[in-house]
Amino acid sequence: MAQAVTVNPRVLEMEYAVRGPIPQRAAEMEREGRRTIPCNIGNPQALGQRPITFYRQVLGLLEDPAGAGRGGVPAEVAETARFMLEASRTGTGAYTESAGFRFVREAVARFIDRRDGVEGGSGVPSDPDLILLTDGASGGVNYLLDALITGPDDGVLVPIPQYPLYSATIARCGGTLVPFYPDEDAGWNLRREHLVEPLEDARSRGITVKAVVAINPGNPTGAILDDESIREIIAVAREWELCIVADEVYQENTYGRPWSSFAKILGREDVPLFSLHSVSKGFYGECGHRGGYMEIRNPPAVEGTGLSLADILLKQASVNLCPNTVGQFLVYLMVSGPPAGTPSFALFETERRAVLGDLEAKADMIKGYFGQMEGLRCFGETGAMYLFPRLERLPEGTGDFEYCMALLEETGLVTVNGAGFGQAPGTHHLRIAFLPPFDLIREVMPRWVEFHNRHVG
Amino acid sequence: MAQAVTVNPRVLEMEYAVRGPIPQRAAEMEREGRRTIPCNIGNPQALGQRPITFYRQVLGLLEDPAGAGRGGVPAEVAETARFMLEASRTGTGAYTESAGFRFVREAVARFIDRRDGVEGGSGVPSDPDLILLTDGASGGVNYLLDALITGPDDGVLVPIPQYPLYSATIARCGGTLVPFYPDEDAGWNLRREHLVEPLEDARSRGITVKAVVAINPGNPTGAILDDESIREIIAVAREWELCIVADEVYQENTYGRPWSSFAKILGREDVPLFSLHSVSKGFYGECGHRGGYMEIRNPPAVEGTGLSLADILLKQASVNLCPNTVGQFLVYLMVSGPPAGTPSFALFETERRAVLGDLEAKADMIKGYFGQMEGLRCFGETGAMYLFPRLERLPEGTGDFEYCMALLEETGLVTVNGAGFGQAPGTHHLRIAFLPPFDLIREVMPRWVEFHNRHVG
Repeated sequence: MAQAVTVNPRVLEMEYAVRGPIPQRAAEMEREGRRTIPCNIGNPQALGQRPITFYRQVLGLLEDPAGAGRGGVPAEVAETARFMLEASRTGTGAYTESAGFRFVREAVARFIDRRDGVEGGSGVPSDPDLILLTDGASGGVNYLLDALITGPDDGVLVPIPQYPLYSATIARCGGTLVPFYPDEDAGWNLRREHLVEPLEDARSRGITVKAVVAINPGNPTGAILDDESIREIIAVAREWELCIVADEVYQENTYGRPWSSFAKILGREDVPLFSLHSVSKGFYGECGHRGGYMEIRNPPAVEGTGLSLADILLKQASVNLCPNTVGQFLVYLMVSGPPAGTPSFALFETERRAVLGDLEAKADMIKGYFGQMEGLRCFGETGAMYLFPRLERLPEGTGDFEYCMALLEETGLVTVNGAGFGQAPGTHHLRIAFLPPFDLIREVMPRWVEFHNRHVG
Repeated sequence: MAQAVTVNPRVLEMEYAVRGPIPQRAAEMEREGRRTIPCNIGNPQALGQRPITFYRQVLGLLEDPAGAGRGGVPAEVAETARFMLEASRTGTGAYTESAGFRFVREAVARFIDRRDGVEGGSGVPSDPDLILLTDGASGGVNYLLDALITGPDDGVLVPIPQYPLYSATIARCGGTLVPFYPDEDAGWNLRREHLVEPLEDARSRGITVKAVVAINPGNPTGAILDDESIREIIAVAREWELCIVADEVYQENTYGRPWSSFAKILGREDVPLFSLHSVSKGFYGECGHRGGYMEIRNPPAVEGTGLSLADILLKQASVNLCPNTVGQFLVYLMVSGPPAGTPSFALFETERRAVLGDLEAKADMIKGYFGQMEGLRCFGETGAMYLFPRLERLPEGTGDFEYCMALLEETGLVTVNGAGFGQAPGTHHLRIAFLPPFDLIREVMPRWVEFHNRHVG
């Protein structure tokens, strides 16, 4: 190489364990012809989950509208595609408004209102002008943290363990991650002091904490926050003037358990809220399409300007022109679904129930095997697509990284060790996505049990 | 609003004229029921250009593979879709490798080799492991400048006028834009001193220039660089240890004129090159799909690490998981095309020639009207999708912003004034995308001529 360059140390610092050494070793094993089972990412269709028929039939016609004339798709599919093409005016091939198609943002607002019982209730309606469609949920997080963080004295309060998008983005922006530790033994819920102590500590070190992140259902924990925990976060955000980043991309993955959105609990309180959702998870698992949105409530004024923080995010979005159109259209389908009473609706409901039912059954099956492993315990209501068991016994001088590497070598299971997400000091965990087909779970879990008891014994 | 926050001044500084006050006024006019003609963005399908049939038929089947069984599409379409689904293994619905599908990167490498005559020639073959698929071309620029810029003492040499993605991203990263001024009267070509003088000046101010940007064909100028200009940029990059960012997204928009890629002219020289291409331009104009790639040659070592700059870019990409899959598939189609000898190939060739022929004819038609405007001159070979005429006479005390605003009010034509791209001090310009349908051009251009001669007269 002719030259050497210096690189931004903030960029060098970024770590992204989900795609770190363990999956690299897995890729090597694949090249050696050994089978691996990628449970390190919530990527359902890579593990055989089939897409929702209605969504894909509509997307097919959006790309190739002449397909409707060739027949063979249900009338409601053709009708939905026709409506979306007209509403968009430009279809899939043109740049859109930087915030995304307005008709999609309007549909998102109606979805949020329905979800939170605003229609006919006492809640605050969602505003399509405060919705930003994004490429997956990551897009919105990048804009927000880029705007809020001015240097190392700006902090973001992040639950540990956390999804590494947050630590990586905070590092890239040059800010300070201020960790807080929800109570694992209380199902990863939290009380006021879990938040206030790190805030006071950060203040004593001269750090201005500007935002608090909540991931609900949790990633990597899979746990679902109770309403009381959400209320505590809102109360602390009001007192400390924090923006709340509510990562709610797993909101459909609650398996019948109670779940509340931050927007619903927030109600009329004037606290800035930035909620994220995505087409990648839920029962659709359309990760590859990179569709998502950020809904903003109570955007704060930006000092020294006549603008709100929402205006700034929109300006940032405009530099990258617009989010991909297919992802935008898929967000519309996600928040609207097929017309009720049609054959597509019946099929959709069957598919939806099957995917969610399977996911829950897989989680239960894996947890059943956990019961046979010595010193391995799993806390919290089952949500999202992950289990995050605690490894309470490990061989002297080894940690969860060594455990996950050995598990990979012996069983082909690709997991992420807890250190990749951060964890309370002295604890060890791993995250497994409960996505493999049943047969594979039945085959590999007994081998894991055997490995585990030998490894820790 | 409950609170006020401080926002990163670098983010506040970003300006993006292409979506600034003039298009905002246009949006207002639209809401008032007045027709506007959006020539401010290179967004062909928003102005009625039809997508390439083969691309869209294949994309339709990638979303909805069962569509092939319903019949009505040519066999080669079904065959291409089947091949792509198999090669990808996971189709459109799953996250991919962070660099993008390997089979697409391999097809990109073969395309580059064909384009540059490497096969059977003496050139250097492209390496699929040094190709990064991205969401449009912007993605790669963001990663690269985020990595290279550590603070205000790091500079990037940028041709003025420039596409505002560069100025906005440099501002966001907190670096310094070091302008250089190609010679407008020489068709926007450049000589060594155009580069060396600003480099020396920057060095005298303590700025380390780390990269040089070249946009070829030009945006906003539309001009095509001659090989001598490309050689000068490479020579200066070698001497000054600069990374070259070659924005070649308009490489198909050359209308029969000679054009060379930076990779071809570079040959075996060991200078770091980062070339960009995208599905948004050319004869396909698939802006909404946000597909693109960055090809890297001679990535420099990163000081203090065992890594190359390419490794760092890949790590950055992994934080955002992967580029959207449909954009990736479309990159494959862009670099491969339909199988030769099939009916789809014949149709494709007809469509391709029609789009490019129309674009050239539109540029010529608009330039013809320019000849009737006093003190308006247009330099450079016609390339890309833009004309960038110089306004040599303007009313006392007014600039190109006032001109473009008045043009919008009187004719509905949405253009971008030269100040939005930067321009040599004391000069005035505007950029117009030569995309509207012929009828509209014939209707609106005489009104522009009338407006112009009255405005400057």
